[in-house]
Amino acid sequence: MNSYPLLDKINYPSDLKKLKKEQLGELCSELRKFVIEVISQHPGHFAAALGVVELTVALHYVYNTPYDQIIFDVGHQAYIHKILTGRKKMFDTLRTFHGLSPFPNRDESPYDAFTVGHASTSISSALGLAVASKLLKQEDRHVISVIGDGAMTGGMAFEGLNNAGIQKSNLLVILNDNHIAIDPNRGALNDYLLDITTSKTYNRVRNDAWNILGKFNRLVPSTRDFLVKVEKGIKYVVMKRSNLFSGLGFRYFGPVDGHDVVHLAEVLSEMKNIKGPKLLHINTVKGKGYKFAEENQTAWHATSSAFNIETGEVLDNGGNKKKSGEKFQIVFGKTLLELAEKNSNIVGVTPAMPSGCSMNIMAEKFPNRVFDVGIAEEHAVTFSAGMAAQGLIPFCNIYSTFMQRSYDQIIHDVCLPKLPVILCLDRAGLVGADGATHQGAFDISYLRHIPNLIVSAPFDENDLRNLMYTAMLTKKPFSIRYPRGCGHNPLWQKPFEEIQIGKGRQLSEGEDIAILSTGAIGYEVICALEILKQENIFPAHFDMMFLKPLDTELLDKIFQKYSFVVTVEDNALQGGFGSLIAEYAVDNYYNTKIKRLGIPDKFIEHGTQQDLYKLCGYDSNAIVKVIKDYVKK
Amino acid sequence: MNSYPLLDKINYPSDLKKLKKEQLGELCSELRKFVIEVISQHPGHFAAALGVVELTVALHYVYNTPYDQIIFDVGHQAYIHKILTGRKKMFDTLRTFHGLSPFPNRDESPYDAFTVGHASTSISSALGLAVASKLLKQEDRHVISVIGDGAMTGGMAFEGLNNAGIQKSNLLVILNDNHIAIDPNRGALNDYLLDITTSKTYNRVRNDAWNILGKFNRLVPSTRDFLVKVEKGIKYVVMKRSNLFSGLGFRYFGPVDGHDVVHLAEVLSEMKNIKGPKLLHINTVKGKGYKFAEENQTAWHATSSAFNIETGEVLDNGGNKKKSGEKFQIVFGKTLLELAEKNSNIVGVTPAMPSGCSMNIMAEKFPNRVFDVGIAEEHAVTFSAGMAAQGLIPFCNIYSTFMQRSYDQIIHDVCLPKLPVILCLDRAGLVGADGATHQGAFDISYLRHIPNLIVSAPFDENDLRNLMYTAMLTKKPFSIRYPRGCGHNPLWQKPFEEIQIGKGRQLSEGEDIAILSTGAIGYEVICALEILKQENIFPAHFDMMFLKPLDTELLDKIFQKYSFVVTVEDNALQGGFGSLIAEYAVDNYYNTKIKRLGIPDKFIEHGTQQDLYKLCGYDSNAIVKVIKDYVKK
Repeated sequence: MNSYPLLDKINYPSDLKKLKKEQLGELCSELRKFVIEVISQHPGHFAAALGVVELTVALHYVYNTPYDQIIFDVGHQAYIHKILTGRKKMFDTLRTFHGLSPFPNRDESPYDAFTVGHASTSISSALGLAVASKLLKQEDRHVISVIGDGAMTGGMAFEGLNNAGIQKSNLLVILNDNHIAIDPNRGALNDYLLDITTSKTYNRVRNDAWNILGKFNRLVPSTRDFLVKVEKGIKYVVMKRSNLFSGLGFRYFGPVDGHDVVHLAEVLSEMKNIKGPKLLHINTVKGKGYKFAEENQTAWHATSSAFNIETGEVLDNGGNKKKSGEKFQIVFGKTLLELAEKNSNIVGVTPAMPSGCSMNIMAEKFPNRVFDVGIAEEHAVTFSAGMAAQGLIPFCNIYSTFMQRSYDQIIHDVCLPKLPVILCLDRAGLVGADGATHQGAFDISYLRHIPNLIVSAPFDENDLRNLMYTAMLTKKPFSIRYPRGCGHNPLWQKPFEEIQIGKGRQLSEGEDIAILSTGAIGYEVICALEILKQENIFPAHFDMMFLKPLDTELLDKIFQKYSFVVTVEDNALQGGFGSLIAEYAVDNYYNTKIKRLGIPDKFIEHGTQQDLYKLCGYDSNAIVKVIKDYVKK
Repeated sequence: MNSYPLLDKINYPSDLKKLKKEQLGELCSELRKFVIEVISQHPGHFAAALGVVELTVALHYVYNTPYDQIIFDVGHQAYIHKILTGRKKMFDTLRTFHGLSPFPNRDESPYDAFTVGHASTSISSALGLAVASKLLKQEDRHVISVIGDGAMTGGMAFEGLNNAGIQKSNLLVILNDNHIAIDPNRGALNDYLLDITTSKTYNRVRNDAWNILGKFNRLVPSTRDFLVKVEKGIKYVVMKRSNLFSGLGFRYFGPVDGHDVVHLAEVLSEMKNIKGPKLLHINTVKGKGYKFAEENQTAWHATSSAFNIETGEVLDNGGNKKKSGEKFQIVFGKTLLELAEKNSNIVGVTPAMPSGCSMNIMAEKFPNRVFDVGIAEEHAVTFSAGMAAQGLIPFCNIYSTFMQRSYDQIIHDVCLPKLPVILCLDRAGLVGADGATHQGAFDISYLRHIPNLIVSAPFDENDLRNLMYTAMLTKKPFSIRYPRGCGHNPLWQKPFEEIQIGKGRQLSEGEDIAILSTGAIGYEVICALEILKQENIFPAHFDMMFLKPLDTELLDKIFQKYSFVVTVEDNALQGGFGSLIAEYAVDNYYNTKIKRLGIPDKFIEHGTQQDLYKLCGYDSNAIVKVIKDYVKK
């Protein structure tokens, strides 16, 4: 549809460098059109990519990549980078099974200096690259971390700044300030950045002060020496200390317009010659150049369906088979509000994901009881623990993959002091298109060995609802894991029922063979049973809603009655649910044969959830095969 | 020996409040004497306690504890707090089995507002308490976090500040600035704090600027309006922006002398009436009042033996049975230096523990290749990954309990991109006197499910040495866990030998029964075999040095040959080594009986390591009992 006269000629940064500076603006327009065209058909992280078009072009124009190294923090803003570094032709395969990786990936391209996906890592990794370059006598190498203001609130970013400030290596941190993570940013640092950017007082005063002091310097010669001293002193104070980053040993530059590509290229060129740690603060607009995305940045953070470019209208691309139930995320959000209405001690905590986990539903009604703490998973959990210690009941919702950041806080601040924090692990299990960095593959393995913690997983929407209700009543450390996407129980909005903690249940009667599943992946078992029924094979099906405490009574019955036990989980096999069942069997000297299905011992790439269940061998067909193989023998 | 006329009358803060302000100084002297006297006989965290005598007295004098809540970050500076809050008489039981907890503990006293032990948690937890108080309409409650400059570099502390700055709740953060964590602090923040404290320019200029502007204001009336504007502007800039904490929304006060108890009490009283988040910066001297500790703060951070008060000489209190071998920490330190001498690509990374883990040995010779990144475990791992990506070989040494902080970074930044970071987990297994917050109880469980990671544990000193050598050669993500304290192999300093990765080995021949151990806890098995020998029972003993990859060939032989397998580990039973063996047995349909010994599913308190092995049922006697019980049957 669109024509791309400049972009067509550019496959690598070497092609880009042939352009005249005056052509860069036109290239940016073409890139923007190209991204909009592709993403309108192939869903992906959209708004962030549009925000960094000029920056990415300027970086590859000025720096000598891949020798010079650029790390995009989080990486969902690296689409332009991918397009400019040899991956334009495959760009429409992004996020699909065996297609381009959703994030920068060292295995995919030498231009991807570091594998990313989680927030706030780029200053640490870039500092590592820079310090190593120095030790390896490659001091001409430039290392650049591009980090958003959202990721900058992560503690790890601060640890990186604090360490970089004393290392004196050639590190450039580009603070891409768009005042938004996925949801609008909240935090003192963000207020601070906004203040720097918008405060006319600050800039005017800084300029005026020098002018005036200069004038007085001439006007009142008798006090000249004193004035010079004061001027120097104030300059020192204002210039060095007036900035948080300067305080941490960085030379601070900015803020500059992140959409003026020529100016950006000039600034970057000039900064190349300045040694030591530097921070360039640029202002950008997330979704820049696409009206609908600019107007609703949260909704357009990532698209999950095709859309009409002209109208912004989301199209049903038929790719997502509509499941019969409701999204677990919506169930969480609506249930939390209901509980909060009943119990004024309930509070919600989310690290920058209010819309992703649907906590915004509660926040609308009770803004003072929902805390979006920014990208700060460690703080989120311990802050929740503090509120719990005072008698409140915090629901702390963090995606399974990001809860990895809070592992120590769960042990040390929640479970050791037995504080009733309800840890809600959204997007547990394989998440699909976001790929290896985002799979919630490990949470059963990293939670079930923590003393004092109740570890649970709802089979369906109604279970999630009742587990939340039960957790509220229980007043103990309590974790609930549930997957991305829909369940299969449209009639979930029933009156609350307390669930007996530590009890599993039988979902299907059967003989000889027992299938034990935990969580929503049990639906694959139900589908498998449908298939097996046609061949007159009837395994029993048990749902183990609690991984801890374990329903040992039920397990004893199962091991005594069945000759073959199959465990099915949407988690790593190592240390996961099947491992737990194996431990129990071994500890109690049961000889029942056990077959464990789950995520194998490798990182799982992107694809649809269904693709990946199949890949990992625990979709319904894989379950059917295991059962039939056993029956044949 | 000493007499304590004031302290004798004080058991609770209510007693303290009866003193006149002028008596507080004398009380501080007595407290200092008391702590020195007790710790000289009963080892503990020493220097930090002496540094906060005045602060602790002032806090309990001014605030209404326990209604007002004080959280001591890390908590090793909370001894004075314990003495003043009902625990003076039991103070000499500190850190001993069933004695006082080494750190503040909610279960021990209502004055311990939060359970602590790990660094940098206190701002988050205090903010939680403060925000909850506000929601619960207890707005008269004060919540105070006392945090050292060392802990302030932890990312979590920054996350807490960033969030607190916008919450506007009544939180007071007291920054106890002594320029030292356990080892002297390094980091941009520490430089910054030192600069605030020592910079005469800063304070002089600030004062002078106002005076002069004031003068000119009178001298040149024609520009008065303009000048007033400028003055206001500069004041705004300097006062608000000149401070990093102010930039984050805190009102900053200080620095003040942390050893002037009367002034401290006055300052705290005045600050009580100021609403919103506040930070008070105090300067203290670690070890204050005990000459030897002031002179060598690192050595006196914690004492491990009794000492002579007059001479500072360490006494052999006979309590620590000298083991035959060398400390694993020394083996690590010396071996790292040897390897670094051979291979210039080796670098060392430690989060504030160079002397604790003995990386200072390498740092002395190669200061530019050892990076003490401050208390920043997340950064330490990802910074290492960055250096590994550039071709260096980083040995990143973090205590097992603190490596919990790096769990996500190990997954996301080391193992996913397969970077050759050598993760050295010091103090793995039960650590003894530091207690529940510090046990290295979980690392096998949290590491063994991570794809691409080699997971190992040396049986003795020589193994540690050769594992380090092997890891250097291997160029893959590699973890090595080893315990606190000595091994049993004095002849460890032999030429390097490469170890075959993924291979276990048989240490003793035997029949019918096989004992499988991993790591240095295997010594308990050797002791058990000595006892069993006398009863003519001869189990075989296998050392599984690698938990991943697993020696499946050896395991097949074991399961085929022996009728009873006992696993012994210094790690949680849930998801640990025995769990791994259970998984393997179950997956391969072996029916061999397995008995798993290790840390049960609870948090383990403080005591000697040997006390705790016994408590947990895997010391030599417990192993003997399991074997004899089996033989009897």
